[in-house]
Amino acid sequence: MLEQLIDALRVLPGVGQKSAQRMAYHVLERDRDGGQRLSEALASAVERIGHCKRCRDFSETELCATCASASRDGHQLCAIESPADRLAIEQATGYRGLYFVLQGRLSPLDGIGPRELGLDQLADRLGEGEVRELIIATNPTVEGDATAHYLAQIARKHAVRPSRLAHGLPLGGELEYIDRGTLAHAFGSRAEITE
Amino acid sequence: MLEQLIDALRVLPGVGQKSAQRMAYHVLERDRDGGQRLSEALASAVERIGHCKRCRDFSETELCATCASASRDGHQLCAIESPADRLAIEQATGYRGLYFVLQGRLSPLDGIGPRELGLDQLADRLGEGEVRELIIATNPTVEGDATAHYLAQIARKHAVRPSRLAHGLPLGGELEYIDRGTLAHAFGSRAEITE
Ligand SMILES: [Zn+2]
Ligand SMILES: [Zn+2]
Repeated sequence: MLEQLIDALRVLPGVGQKSAQRMAYHVLERDRDGGQRLSEALASAVERIGHCKRCRDFSETELCATCASASRDGHQLCAIESPADRLAIEQATGYRGLYFVLQGRLSPLDGIGPRELGLDQLADRLGEGEVRELIIATNPTVEGDATAHYLAQIARKHAVRPSRLAHGLPLGGELEYIDRGTLAHAFGSRAEITE
Repeated sequence: MLEQLIDALRVLPGVGQKSAQRMAYHVLERDRDGGQRLSEALASAVERIGHCKRCRDFSETELCATCASASRDGHQLCAIESPADRLAIEQATGYRGLYFVLQGRLSPLDGIGPRELGLDQLADRLGEGEVRELIIATNPTVEGDATAHYLAQIARKHAVRPSRLAHGLPLGGELEYIDRGTLAHAFGSRAEITE
């Protein structure tokens, strides 16, 4: 049973055999209440957290709080790779528009194509005519760049202005881990994608 | 609910806000089955894993498998700080004796004294007369050393020979993280504690 717990902990990213063991012992020796709470939080989250049908972010309800809010600006849509990027942008910038969460980036070798990223849904959304600017905030990586180019094409096809966060993001970095100042600056000085 | 999961993950040692977030997203995006399994493993472990009444190691049964085994040598008893140390010793050495798990080390400032480490129980065990050598394998830290001295006194009082793992352990290190070769060597050349 202890072995099963150690094994199960390895589902968490960055947790190998040694740290899983340490975690299991810590919970059993020092914080069984915390272990119980974690067990319950995992069970409810796995069972009840789905995706917002409009922006694909995590949500317990059909529409997430951001999409359902009347105070957000529907003329701007920001495409991001992951829900964590939304948190980072909300915390670092004054952005008041909406989001579209790709839940990944184009990666043909891993079988992740336009369908997996919901790009049909994104195209429909841009076709509705309300969005004027698509702010493409994919990560500054090779795959993030390829995804950005693809998204910019879709935007242009629907007469929506594509823009991208300004350079200043460290190359090869993950947006989620960039300090607030850099992210706020890059967000503020985003440039229109002209070709 | 997502916030509760992120919060609950921080019960795990070494997991801060950022990694908790990453873990939650990873489970929700890529491995909900793994999350479900982890939830169940935690719940059963927290509820059903107790302590062996003889050696204080984790056990689902009153006596753990090691204490219940007929093939271990009852003349040697090895005192260790944590269950992880038993695994490390079993994997690195050919030790066939029994264990006593302190579940900690003397640390008066944290309120951890002889009672918390089960030292009355250890004294009773040594008083039974079967144990001839108490191998003290506490960590080579200040608190581990103080604990070792205290244990050696108890052993002598019951005419049991106390010994300690040979020097060669890196100072200030945690036994659990020492490479097998060093640990096997230190275990093999343990020295009797004469004063
Ligand atoms: Zn939404
Ligand atoms: Zn036992």
